[in-house]
Amino acid sequence: MMEITAVPQTDKSAEKSARKQIDGLSKPIGSLGRLEEYAVKLAGIRGRVGGSLGKKAVLVFAADNGVHAAGITPVPKSVTAAQAAAIANGLAGVSVLARQAGAEVLVYNVGIEGDVADAGIIGKVIIRGTNDISKGPAMTRKECKDAMRVGADAVLAHEQYGAIGMGEMGICNTTTTAAVACALLGISPEEMTGRGAGITEEQFQKKIDAIKSALKVNKPDQDNVIDVLSKVGGLDIAAMAGAFYMCAQRRIPAVVDGFISACAALCAVRLSPGVQNYLFLSHKSDEQGFAHIENALQMQAPLDLHMRLGEGSGCPLMFYLLEAALRITDEMGTFADSKVDGEKLVDLRT
Amino acid sequence: MMEITAVPQTDKSAEKSARKQIDGLSKPIGSLGRLEEYAVKLAGIRGRVGGSLGKKAVLVFAADNGVHAAGITPVPKSVTAAQAAAIANGLAGVSVLARQAGAEVLVYNVGIEGDVADAGIIGKVIIRGTNDISKGPAMTRKECKDAMRVGADAVLAHEQYGAIGMGEMGICNTTTTAAVACALLGISPEEMTGRGAGITEEQFQKKIDAIKSALKVNKPDQDNVIDVLSKVGGLDIAAMAGAFYMCAQRRIPAVVDGFISACAALCAVRLSPGVQNYLFLSHKSDEQGFAHIENALQMQAPLDLHMRLGEGSGCPLMFYLLEAALRITDEMGTFADSKVDGEKLVDLRT
Repeated sequence: MMEITAVPQTDKSAEKSARKQIDGLSKPIGSLGRLEEYAVKLAGIRGRVGGSLGKKAVLVFAADNGVHAAGITPVPKSVTAAQAAAIANGLAGVSVLARQAGAEVLVYNVGIEGDVADAGIIGKVIIRGTNDISKGPAMTRKECKDAMRVGADAVLAHEQYGAIGMGEMGICNTTTTAAVACALLGISPEEMTGRGAGITEEQFQKKIDAIKSALKVNKPDQDNVIDVLSKVGGLDIAAMAGAFYMCAQRRIPAVVDGFISACAALCAVRLSPGVQNYLFLSHKSDEQGFAHIENALQMQAPLDLHMRLGEGSGCPLMFYLLEAALRITDEMGTFADSKVDGEKLVDLRT
Repeated sequence: MMEITAVPQTDKSAEKSARKQIDGLSKPIGSLGRLEEYAVKLAGIRGRVGGSLGKKAVLVFAADNGVHAAGITPVPKSVTAAQAAAIANGLAGVSVLARQAGAEVLVYNVGIEGDVADAGIIGKVIIRGTNDISKGPAMTRKECKDAMRVGADAVLAHEQYGAIGMGEMGICNTTTTAAVACALLGISPEEMTGRGAGITEEQFQKKIDAIKSALKVNKPDQDNVIDVLSKVGGLDIAAMAGAFYMCAQRRIPAVVDGFISACAALCAVRLSPGVQNYLFLSHKSDEQGFAHIENALQMQAPLDLHMRLGEGSGCPLMFYLLEAALRITDEMGTFADSKVDGEKLVDLRT
């Protein structure tokens, strides 16, 4: 079970020091844009200016979704387990990108339906797949909180890490995510739901109908995240929400992947608003609903790669940008070094 | 002097092989978005699928601009030399980001006005600063072509490199760049010109007036790039244009930085349209004119970091994304590996 409390405030004094140091570097004020913002935010989170990012990990939560029964996809449920194994075995997209970034990938089974034999997957099953949200609640509130606890514990097991990204694997989890986002934001399924790359018009209609039905049957309470998550969400989203929350509690920079990860981050922010101060968006998912969550979080992702893979695949790319931000702070020269009158350098290029 | 000819075609068969290989990886078709596109484009340029990117360099061309006399900036001209030295000495923004990416930075003096003592700067001075474009031509056509040759030769000196980015340093070079872009694209100075971070309303008006005057006095021929560059451009832009052109001639992936670099790339494309096939945009410059050049090139930069530093600072970040694209191609598993029926995996997540 999870008890939710306020998360620590960031260190305003470290933020101020970082801003001052960055403004003294040999460049026009603000000319490194978001890299400067990231450096300041990291300082506030970490309580110090610059320094190496340290160890990085992507936590991937895998689970099956009962809404698969609604006939919204041609992909069999068994792909969740197969792809979770591919991630754990270093063969999936996130595995490759994490290796490039020098980050670890940990795969947690929070609710895959079938048997999972793969040794690389960490078994933390709450239930073997949720119920069909279009017919009733996905899970009980206790199961939802237990899944959140798995995510939180996964973060605690990496407490000394410098950055943690949250990913997922679960057939039909853009459907559950859209349902959660609709419930939390009061936006219609038509506006929230993406067509994916290749589902047919018929499957797309079924997907929207399933979400509409889920909202109608379950009547999730917009102001109660646990109610929403347990009724129309999934075990993966719940685990990620718990992980985002715990990152903030332990002052660890938390990196968001795409639509599903961002929806989980939004859940964590709704549970404890200070979580926002620990989040970094990575890439603009090609899923239509992502922009709605960006708006709700009042944040913008820096990478626009038209990716829609999930798995946490955007997180390692963001680790690189966070490291760039810290290096800028630590390694750039000052105006004094280059004997230039800094006061005049508002814009070097004009 | 530069002779401009058609550049080699890319290898369509390698592009096709790359697309086929990528479509067989264990992910929904197209779900890695632009990373997949980059992998295909790289295959066409390099004539092979995947492989390491190899050595990377950012070539930085520094020069002064006579339009400084028009009073459009409070920054003294001497900053061009000082900042070029900071870049060469590893202390500037591009130096730090290149170090992170494992890329070299080479600084070429193509026309700094003052004396340059710094040993790290490669001396290739054509003239010591251009003339004031608001009064007459910046340079002769011969000088422009000589500057292009410097850029081309700089690429030839790094012919075995896997990717080359183009950067610049020169006070007032957003003014010359805006003038060139206005001339080439037939867009008004008001639409093309950015306010920079800190120039006053008065300086902004002077900047626009200087560009208007440059276009009126010089009457650059929209259809003649050398005419435009020599009349209203700068030595840095000319050198970068020559470098972009030579990258295409030698089939080297060429990475574009911000507004100035993109304008030089546009010049190279106008000189020899096939150059386009060798270009990779890196980041969306915060300079207002950048979007116009993106439109003209019909390309979109993947990084939105609100940067406006120049120096080639966006290029190393793009090297990382190109390396990610190649790693995806080389290291991801296939559907066969994960024993999943690939035909069904149009969208894993639905």
